[in-house]
Amino acid sequence: MLFSRGFSRIARNLRGSSNGCRWFLYSRDQNHHFLLLHNYQSPRGSTDTVLRSLIFSKALPALHSTRRQVHHQSSSIVEDQLDPFSLVADELSHIAHRLQAMVAAEVPKLASVAEYFFKMGVEGKRFRPTILLLMSTAVNVPIPGSPPTNELGGTLTTKLRSRQQSIAEITEMIHVASLLHDDVLDDADTRRGIGSLNSIMGNKLAVLAGDLLLSRACVALASLKNTEVVSLIAKVVEHLVTGETMQMTSTSDQRCSMEYYMEKTYYKTASLISSSCKAIALLAGQTAEVSTLAFEYGKNLGLAYQLIDDVLDFTGTSASLGKGSLSDISQGIVTAPFLFAMEEFPQLRAVVDEGFDNSANVDLALEYLEKSRGIQRTKELAMKHANLAAAAIDSLPESNDEEVRKSRRALVDLTRIVFTRTK
Amino acid sequence: MLFSRGFSRIARNLRGSSNGCRWFLYSRDQNHHFLLLHNYQSPRGSTDTVLRSLIFSKALPALHSTRRQVHHQSSSIVEDQLDPFSLVADELSHIAHRLQAMVAAEVPKLASVAEYFFKMGVEGKRFRPTILLLMSTAVNVPIPGSPPTNELGGTLTTKLRSRQQSIAEITEMIHVASLLHDDVLDDADTRRGIGSLNSIMGNKLAVLAGDLLLSRACVALASLKNTEVVSLIAKVVEHLVTGETMQMTSTSDQRCSMEYYMEKTYYKTASLISSSCKAIALLAGQTAEVSTLAFEYGKNLGLAYQLIDDVLDFTGTSASLGKGSLSDISQGIVTAPFLFAMEEFPQLRAVVDEGFDNSANVDLALEYLEKSRGIQRTKELAMKHANLAAAAIDSLPESNDEEVRKSRRALVDLTRIVFTRTK
Repeated sequence: MLFSRGFSRIARNLRGSSNGCRWFLYSRDQNHHFLLLHNYQSPRGSTDTVLRSLIFSKALPALHSTRRQVHHQSSSIVEDQLDPFSLVADELSHIAHRLQAMVAAEVPKLASVAEYFFKMGVEGKRFRPTILLLMSTAVNVPIPGSPPTNELGGTLTTKLRSRQQSIAEITEMIHVASLLHDDVLDDADTRRGIGSLNSIMGNKLAVLAGDLLLSRACVALASLKNTEVVSLIAKVVEHLVTGETMQMTSTSDQRCSMEYYMEKTYYKTASLISSSCKAIALLAGQTAEVSTLAFEYGKNLGLAYQLIDDVLDFTGTSASLGKGSLSDISQGIVTAPFLFAMEEFPQLRAVVDEGFDNSANVDLALEYLEKSRGIQRTKELAMKHANLAAAAIDSLPESNDEEVRKSRRALVDLTRIVFTRTK
Repeated sequence: MLFSRGFSRIARNLRGSSNGCRWFLYSRDQNHHFLLLHNYQSPRGSTDTVLRSLIFSKALPALHSTRRQVHHQSSSIVEDQLDPFSLVADELSHIAHRLQAMVAAEVPKLASVAEYFFKMGVEGKRFRPTILLLMSTAVNVPIPGSPPTNELGGTLTTKLRSRQQSIAEITEMIHVASLLHDDVLDDADTRRGIGSLNSIMGNKLAVLAGDLLLSRACVALASLKNTEVVSLIAKVVEHLVTGETMQMTSTSDQRCSMEYYMEKTYYKTASLISSSCKAIALLAGQTAEVSTLAFEYGKNLGLAYQLIDDVLDFTGTSASLGKGSLSDISQGIVTAPFLFAMEEFPQLRAVVDEGFDNSANVDLALEYLEKSRGIQRTKELAMKHANLAAAAIDSLPESNDEEVRKSRRALVDLTRIVFTRTK
């Protein structure tokens, strides 16, 4: 819970300056303890967002690389661009099959759960395992004080890779379990165009399927025999619950608070990928510094992903408002674009408080949003987090290994893909 | 899953003999591999149920003690009778407070979950932790090849006890999580006279509260740093899901099969207590033999408990049929009394298949049950399992330690309390 306090100053500081802003993201937690400090220029300036500095308070190197920090500014990419997904395509397919087998084997009635995994054409479904497999290679650098990898032999490397693949599988199982339980909770009939398990098999089996996945994830975690990793990942389930509870039970003040929103977003979206990125590094026996950078990458990418999701809910694939599914406001969920708009037009709050049960209120709220810079500022915040994610990768210990460099480049490319995606 | 096959011959053999029966409970599993073989005399005989022999096929001593194997036959108890609950009352209260703190601390909205724990006057709620604390003392015997306990010092003993208390807490968390999710599933408004969390806080929070408990249980498990124990207990969650799925999705043939019923009962009721009993022994560093005896105690006590539950659903506190809540048949769940009755009156099957939506069918089914020996035979089966549980305790390595003996006596007494309870 302490971690979430890290977001506590965002809203205040964003409000405190309209042309430029200094952020303090202070976080204390059992596993990470750092201070993020950076400035950004006015969104009206020629360079929309520039990361100035990122200072960790405890044993972390300053993220001083600027090579890719402004990569979103440039339309021409210096490095060869690779499709991040194709780099790990074979492994992704292997993991998808293992997941299907794990779920389908013993409980045939729950076999349709497997359809949730790696559904073709649903980009989001491949994001997490792709990130985790790329991260596995990206942190494959010598550990100070350990013998070189080649002395350990290929078997150990293969074994490590297999354990890291397990993290990708466990992450997908937890993710799908949370989708299943969220479907029950929200009574949603469809999710991103895929027929909801709820409507196919009923609430009862959806809850049980989620429980089954959670227990399989727990058994798979236990078999990794790394207590730190088990605790780290098990805690994610608690975060998912906390985030969902925060969303369900918020007061009007909480719903209209950027701090509360970012805390909830971390729990609901960023905790899983950040913790599993860290787990990848921990399994590799990496240093605390490398593990924290892996965590930072996942956290910031997760936050950027969700912020763009919030924008797409309003705009869909076009740039026009109202073209998205508007599923958030239809469920009374207030996201970043509205929160920013409310800073410009405080009268929007009354509309939000009235709710969106009637379409007149929806139209009115969209009018305010259109007049405001809410969408633009949300994109800027997403870009900031995407840049922080890229900066974390740039701060990893240098490596001359071509595979390592390729994977790191792909991880950085993913920060742009998150930003430019249309679904 | 393989374990459940152990029950596969019950129905056939029970049908095969009306005056006496030989059981073969054969079980193969990653953790246990044994053969139970025993005879019982006709229920019409002067001694209702006598355990003849129990032979383990793999490195397990035969359970040859008969001292308490017939304790249900005798109205006079040889040993001093102690209240099993009072033996561990202080620790129970300590655990209850810790559980409340664990649940209430970080998510106030879910605080009412805590009311489920150790609800005063609900005997069942104290059963599991009482068993586990008593088992902790009962298996506190020297381990061959290890230094005597006093050489290890009191701190280690205290630490072990604290870890065993954790198992009791984890077990309660998993149990309550399954109640919460079952409440969602069955849409039950009340459960044993306690207001259902469902009706108090809604389905959404009940699912989340269950997930929270599962994740807390997983974190607590991980902190025990014993991979075998983590896998063992995590597997229980899968068993609970499997049992519930079996109950929900059964065909008519499955619903009317004693084998299927016993398999489901193991998963839904006996797996949790048997696995946690075994975990207690594993944490103590006990031998495979002792761990398996602990498992056998829990398994047989759990099965006996559920069989008596099934009887009480028809009779309540009186001996008369129809005085119970009849909640099982009202949900279309066919339990042991009906399954035995169906062997005598095959025409009952048609009534069962028609369902119990109208009260005429309920009355007709109860008439058949009253004419049959279904209730009596269910009690006999429960007694058999209670005796097997007591026999497992009697087969533990001998100890002259008064505390150990007292706890074992209390565990055996619990097998009688399970049998004579009225709620």
